[in-house]
Amino acid sequence: MNIRRPLAYARAHRQRFVTELKEFLRFPNMSSQTARASDIRRCASWLARHLQGIGMQWVHVIPTRGNPIVYASWQGAKNRPTLLIYGHYDVLPGEPLAQWKTPPFSPVVRGRNIHGRGAADDKGQLFSHVKAIESYLRTARALPLNVKCLFEGEEEIGSTHLLPFIARNKNALRADAAVISDTKMLAPDRPAISYAQRGGLRAEIEVLGPRQELHSGTFGGAVLNPVQALCEIIASLHDEEGRVTIPGFYDDVREWSEKERAYMARTGPSDEKILQDAKIEQGWGESGYTLYERTTIRPALTLNGIAGGHNGPGVKGVIPTRAVAKLSFRLVPDQDPERIGKRFREHIARITPSAVESSVRTQSPVQPALVDRNHPAVRTAGFAYKKGFGAFPVFLRSGGSIPVVNAFQEHLGIPTVLMGFGLPDDRIHAPNEKFHLPNFYRAIDTSIWYLAAAARTLRGSSRAGRAERLEREWSA
Amino acid sequence: MNIRRPLAYARAHRQRFVTELKEFLRFPNMSSQTARASDIRRCASWLARHLQGIGMQWVHVIPTRGNPIVYASWQGAKNRPTLLIYGHYDVLPGEPLAQWKTPPFSPVVRGRNIHGRGAADDKGQLFSHVKAIESYLRTARALPLNVKCLFEGEEEIGSTHLLPFIARNKNALRADAAVISDTKMLAPDRPAISYAQRGGLRAEIEVLGPRQELHSGTFGGAVLNPVQALCEIIASLHDEEGRVTIPGFYDDVREWSEKERAYMARTGPSDEKILQDAKIEQGWGESGYTLYERTTIRPALTLNGIAGGHNGPGVKGVIPTRAVAKLSFRLVPDQDPERIGKRFREHIARITPSAVESSVRTQSPVQPALVDRNHPAVRTAGFAYKKGFGAFPVFLRSGGSIPVVNAFQEHLGIPTVLMGFGLPDDRIHAPNEKFHLPNFYRAIDTSIWYLAAAARTLRGSSRAGRAERLEREWSA
Repeated sequence: MNIRRPLAYARAHRQRFVTELKEFLRFPNMSSQTARASDIRRCASWLARHLQGIGMQWVHVIPTRGNPIVYASWQGAKNRPTLLIYGHYDVLPGEPLAQWKTPPFSPVVRGRNIHGRGAADDKGQLFSHVKAIESYLRTARALPLNVKCLFEGEEEIGSTHLLPFIARNKNALRADAAVISDTKMLAPDRPAISYAQRGGLRAEIEVLGPRQELHSGTFGGAVLNPVQALCEIIASLHDEEGRVTIPGFYDDVREWSEKERAYMARTGPSDEKILQDAKIEQGWGESGYTLYERTTIRPALTLNGIAGGHNGPGVKGVIPTRAVAKLSFRLVPDQDPERIGKRFREHIARITPSAVESSVRTQSPVQPALVDRNHPAVRTAGFAYKKGFGAFPVFLRSGGSIPVVNAFQEHLGIPTVLMGFGLPDDRIHAPNEKFHLPNFYRAIDTSIWYLAAAARTLRGSSRAGRAERLEREWSA
Repeated sequence: MNIRRPLAYARAHRQRFVTELKEFLRFPNMSSQTARASDIRRCASWLARHLQGIGMQWVHVIPTRGNPIVYASWQGAKNRPTLLIYGHYDVLPGEPLAQWKTPPFSPVVRGRNIHGRGAADDKGQLFSHVKAIESYLRTARALPLNVKCLFEGEEEIGSTHLLPFIARNKNALRADAAVISDTKMLAPDRPAISYAQRGGLRAEIEVLGPRQELHSGTFGGAVLNPVQALCEIIASLHDEEGRVTIPGFYDDVREWSEKERAYMARTGPSDEKILQDAKIEQGWGESGYTLYERTTIRPALTLNGIAGGHNGPGVKGVIPTRAVAKLSFRLVPDQDPERIGKRFREHIARITPSAVESSVRTQSPVQPALVDRNHPAVRTAGFAYKKGFGAFPVFLRSGGSIPVVNAFQEHLGIPTVLMGFGLPDDRIHAPNEKFHLPNFYRAIDTSIWYLAAAARTLRGSSRAGRAERLEREWSA
């Protein structure tokens, strides 16, 4: 199979690929908002039709109790290995909308970037593989190896239904390696492979005060205010060294060797670079660690939002009835999200003043993940990057969570290559999210190279190559 | 002038009075929401037309830079004293709307109460005097003394424009005493006169973090979160004894004699009663003081609301850009709101961590107020209560603020009688606010008796009695 033809095809059709990506970005399919369920379904159908259109053999929109999974496979490469390509088509909400230069779901190309919610996270990156596959199927009518695409619609809310789906469909999903493009590079010419992700846990603390709003003149000074109580609880969760005060929180945190920390210092971003990326002047956090370490090998507790009482325009002299805070734990090996959740609930119950009531809800536990940097699937990615971007990747740890990486390891027994095509300034999860178009084009090339090379480097499992159509057994 | 005729008239027209009060309550004229300016104006016009309709001589809707003042006078009682009746026709918003059994601006009578925003605070109480005046003017075609009604539309936002208006119109407003019904009794048969109100100051703290929302995975642990910083600031504003930690906050707080505290203990509500009124199980606040003392002779800092980051449905893994808290100071003699505001701003600036920025806005300063319990105007109120409610009033301190009381003292040199007709469970500022209808009827009778008695007990100023129509000089 001559690789020049798919590469030439990809180059020739760039403009159409961007137009199609715009179509994909136009769906306001925010998984965190149940009101958007129909947008989610429309987007899933669109993606499935698209995969069918480019020539994938088996395409399914698999319903779950949540958002559907879009699956597509091509298994015509007998005795060749199988690659599982994962991506997520769901996105975060666009809020705060006022800060967008153009609306989040009206994608536009400005300069060399395409702007819109999901441009980089993850529609644009997912689409790079789709376009690589198309480039093969439209030129060679075949792929160099077997491919299974697994695109979910709930990544931003913890992959609630995908994870049990993987556990239940081990045979159908059998593959030799997985590739995910949902991380970032260091710069447009500096590719990176993320070999570690933090785990996570979402939590919500609710504090209930008086049963009805009270006049703050009549009762102010005699009633514990739930907003104040919540603030006191939150304030107590960090000590002055930036460490989390939940008892036992650090018990299972793995300490890394000087050698590993030296490697990180050499390859990873400097404090200055991280501050620059965040557009802030001053860092913060656990003393004794660099900012890169604080965001990768150290756990964190981050407030995502708070609300209570009157927060509209004007003033209202009340003692509110309740206050709620949303937060995220970012966890590292060998912390266990469930155990941390339990400790957190117990701690909040213990420190809540008796004059108010508190409750804690946790959700979306994600295990921290580590990938072997020497696996052939990972090394092949290095080669593909060199071809696509002209440079070998650095190996980085990443601060976020990709829950599915653990599931692939645990249930399918395969490593995951985190071949990111995003850039540090893509503003994922923020207003004016964008994807750098040169990265989009190179990502497609890189994926084309990866498919070709992985066909030779991955150890083919005969069963995975036999196109068994195990998908018929889907159990969603 | 025979008092029986107005009393009989009031009794005979109760049903219509309630219907008219409903009309009055239907205006959603929330002064804290600028979007409601036209509702405010409609309500002011309605009230003015109503005052004209009952026979007041001079009725003006006086525009200000904010909401209009409704003024009406009757000055046909030569050589008789003049009484200034103050009330406010503006109301607070109805939020949280979900907790209302019937919508806040669709007043209904349920049992012996009329429900709706403003029923007790202050439309219903204000209206009691209007109906007393009507009862005289419709039966005797005269009032027993001269009356000036001053009804403002900005009480809930600090009487911003009324206070300078009073300062500028001393002559036109000249009177011998003022009466305000905007406080509460102890029980339906236990009238009360509030002789002290706390002062106040509204404040807003804004904390700014990163310029754009950041992914809490990528940056969590390395960036000071503005929600967390705000919580830490707020948490630090009280110590473990429930005292406010702002340096110098208690410097000017007047200490009361054992005798005064014993009087308060004898006449005022017990801790148990206050807990009952607030429908809470457990009190809170500055140690060493009863709940009544904590809400009257001790200052307080109360959080009214907080907001920051993602607080809609679902989860969003972000480090927010900003967080805002709204709070109210409740101040006591001899604290000065301006000085407290300055100390607060300086304190917040001092304790804000350098990794974030903070700003403080203060507004609506109100001086604490004290009224002489032995002034004839106050003693006459005792008599009127006895006639209207069958019981003499107790003298209470109140925790809220009525800014105008200070202005009457300072600019007009007159005492204010706080003749409240509300009840502790009226839920003012809260969902399901109501006014007890038997109190409404008795309030009208009490006002009728008060007008009659005050005609004899107040020292008439000849100038005030000369119907000088100084209103022509209004300077709004």
